[in-house]
Formats: sequence, C-alpha cells, structure tokens
Amino acid sequence: MERDKALKIVAEQLTEHRYVHTLGVMETAISLAELYGGDVKRAETAAIFHDYAKFRPKKEMKKIIEEQDMPKKLLEHNSELWHAPVGAYLVKKEVGIKDKEVLKAIKYHTSGRPDMTLLEKIIYVADYIEPGRQFPGVEEVRELAKTNLDQALIKSLQNTITFLLKKNQAIYPDTIKTYNYLVLQGGKSS
Amino acid sequence: MERDKALKIVAEQLTEHRYVHTLGVMETAISLAELYGGDVKRAETAAIFHDYAKFRPKKEMKKIIEEQDMPKKLLEHNSELWHAPVGAYLVKKEVGIKDKEVLKAIKYHTSGRPDMTLLEKIIYVADYIEPGRQFPGVEEVRELAKTNLDQALIKSLQNTITFLLKKNQAIYPDTIKTYNYLVLQGGKSS
Repeated sequence: MERDKALKIVAEQLTEHRYVHTLGVMETAISLAELYGGDVKRAETAAIFHDYAKFRPKKEMKKIIEEQDMPKKLLEHNSELWHAPVGAYLVKKEVGIKDKEVLKAIKYHTSGRPDMTLLEKIIYVADYIEPGRQFPGVEEVRELAKTNLDQALIKSLQNTITFLLKKNQAIYPDTIKTYNYLVLQGGKSS
Repeated sequence: MERDKALKIVAEQLTEHRYVHTLGVMETAISLAELYGGDVKRAETAAIFHDYAKFRPKKEMKKIIEEQDMPKKLLEHNSELWHAPVGAYLVKKEVGIKDKEVLKAIKYHTSGRPDMTLLEKIIYVADYIEPGRQFPGVEEVRELAKTNLDQALIKSLQNTITFLLKKNQAIYPDTIKTYNYLVLQGGKSS
C-alpha cells in the first residue's frame, strides 16, 4: 500500500500524539531495516499500522480476544497488551492487509515472542526508541540499536520488566519467554 | 526430629558458612512461624534442611532431575535452582523425612510457586532475610516481613528478578508465575 494512503487510514484511528509517534516509529523502522538488511517496505507498513487498534474500546478488544484464536491469558494481564494482537486482526479485516510477516510484526510488538523474525524485532525496537520517546534508559537502547539489534531488544525488555516490577504490575509470560530466549541463545552462541 | 540431631545431619552436608546461614534461616523461620501462626516445628525442620543438597555435584543433581519426576526445564536454567527440588528428594530418601509440608517448603524455596502455603512463604522469606544476608534491598524486606509476609515475598521476588535482569541472566518461569500470582491476587482483593 502507498505510504500516503496508509497514513491517511491510520490517522483516522489515532490521536494526534499517537500519530506523531507512529511517524517516528515508521522513520526508525525504515532506518533499522536499511541497517540490518530487512524488508524496508514491510517495515514501513508494519510501523504505520502497529498501533491501529490502540484506541478501540476495551470492550470491543475483549470481545475480539474471546472470539478469535488469541491467548485468553491476555485478559488477565494489562489491557495495554491487547491492541497488538487485536490490531493485527483488525488491520487484516478492515484494511485488507494480508501480508503475514507484517501482521505478525504488529501482533507481537508489545509482548515479543521467542525466535522473533527480523521484522518483528525492528518494529519492537523502533516502537521503543523512536525520537519522541523520552524515558530513563531509552538513549542506551538507541545506541545499542546502531550496532546490535538483539542487544537493543534485550535491553528494552530488561527496562520494561524492571519498570513493571517497580510498579507492582504483573509481567506477561511471553515477555519473559522472549527475554529468556535471547539471553539463553546468547549464552549458547558465545 | 530433634533439632540437635537434624543440625548434626545437615552440618555434614554444608560448609561452615552455609551452616551458619542455615542457623540464621532456622531462627528467622521460627520467628516468622510464631508471628504468622505457622507450624513452628515444621518451620524449624524445613529451615534446617532447606540447603541439604546445596553442595552436591552438578552431575548428581542433573541425574536426579532427569530420573525423577522433576521439571526438565530446570536443566535449561541456572544450576543454583537445582538444589531445592533435589534437596527435597534427598532429604526424604537419605534422612527419612516424609512430612509433605516440610518437603514442599524445601522444594520451592528458590523458585517459589503460585499459591504457596504459609510454610513455603516462611522458608522463602527466611532464606532471603536471615541476619547473615547483606545486600541492597534486604533491609526493606526485613521490615515488610514484620507486618506483611506477602508484601515481603513480593519485594524479595522483585529484587531477585531485577538482579537477574541486570546480570543478563534468564528468569525461571515459576518465579514470574509466583510474582504475577501475588500481584494479581493483591489487585483482586483490594
């Protein structure tokens, strides 16, 4: 899909703040795809649509999770996680995007998963480091992303989990599985 | 079993440093059992034997995990975790302790598990805060343990997970499940 057309579709779904964030993710994802030999066009499309469902009512998202083939344990965890799998579903249904690689990158952009594809990693990290993001630790991940995408991913997962621990919030098991997979893999290959 | 007899048995399995630690866990576990209405004698016995297998050779522990009904995923994680379930097995087999409550408190003293019994919580927390322990955050857990055992447990889990994250080490899934169970339960009851 043409970039301008895609941006027009997604703009109708987002607040202005979130639209600006989306533009930042798009630029960052394109840069990372160029740097790591990823599919630039897919990175652009996945980035544009990654937060498509962000502002859907909780009730609608819950219904979709219950009715579609999605992990029911999502409902026990923070609803901030829901828009990723629900987004992948709605982007296919409402926008007509059928590219499975793109849909998976949207689906896993909040939890991650073990053995992520390059595109999934790019969207996850781009979402974390896009220029509008300002929080403790983001600069370190930006630096890592210039030389080692896996290390950037590990650091962003560590920051996210530590942040949740400090807030007494539950940690989604897939996030831990993603982190464990990456550090255990690192141990094996080193 | 008489305290002196139990201590004599466990002393043969431990270094002097670890024996002194065990005495600290015993005193602390007895205090916590008295404070929270737990079984004081069981707390004493579980504390005395909690590190029984700590210095068994890795090879022996691995064989026991492989041959007995223990989670095989333990072998993918830090061997520091192994002595807990292996200890429960050996304390039954070699020392003849058959009390299931005591054995479970030994079994789960490193990973925790969702829906822990009072005795399991007492041993987990006593192991973390006994007087010989000196590391960042331990004093906060000691204070919490005086008034709220669950909050002490949550804080010790948060500290442990944060410590592992900082060291780029994998996190045993049961530890996260224990933490999630406690914070989600807290959310429901408040």
